[in-house]
Amino acid sequence: MSDDCIFCKIASGAIPAKFVYEDEFLVAFPDINPMAPVHVLVIPRKHLDSVAAAGPSDSALLGHALLTLPKIAAKLGIAESGFRVVMNTGKDGGQSVGHLHWHLLGGRFMEWPPG
Amino acid sequence: MSDDCIFCKIASGAIPAKFVYEDEFLVAFPDINPMAPVHVLVIPRKHLDSVAAAGPSDSALLGHALLTLPKIAAKLGIAESGFRVVMNTGKDGGQSVGHLHWHLLGGRFMEWPPG
Repeated sequence: MSDDCIFCKIASGAIPAKFVYEDEFLVAFPDINPMAPVHVLVIPRKHLDSVAAAGPSDSALLGHALLTLPKIAAKLGIAESGFRVVMNTGKDGGQSVGHLHWHLLGGRFMEWPPG
Repeated sequence: MSDDCIFCKIASGAIPAKFVYEDEFLVAFPDINPMAPVHVLVIPRKHLDSVAAAGPSDSALLGHALLTLPKIAAKLGIAESGFRVVMNTGKDGGQSVGHLHWHLLGGRFMEWPPG
């Protein structure tokens, strides 16, 4: 946990958020500026600045996260219609919070290009 | 391998592509319709229709893929400037090829919303 990280505070419950999914390793909650009818953020409880900060010991966590994304999509009713997952890293990627997170979007057709 | 899958054919070499990265589990090659100065597709050699088709036995593969994306970004010179990773699943996600793949984009600021 990083003391000044807003996502660490959300994961720990220090800042309240409505979790649409949680398990031992991950939590998911609505994006405050949704870009689609369904738009949630999925984050690891463990603080990682970004995917670039992950190392071999995080492989199981990352695999678990990818396997869990479709399950969260199913829970939110967008598994059949389809969904987009976006992971931003660094300035050009548009990363706005320095804690690894995946945007899960659906409920409408996601256009191309992706930003 | 799926006999009628274009990405399986690319991974096997049956359809030529310029690999910007390859290892035992993954290959990466330029998107034929690039949406950014750097836009490559990263795919597992193993055929999976999408992330929704992955199971627990694929967790290590998925973890490896996520750990490898920043390395490919570094090789392509966009690790410092930043990058976006996009994974489309199903119709609303805009998935155009039924073989799991990650779009890796950078070399310009990636806008919001992501499609």
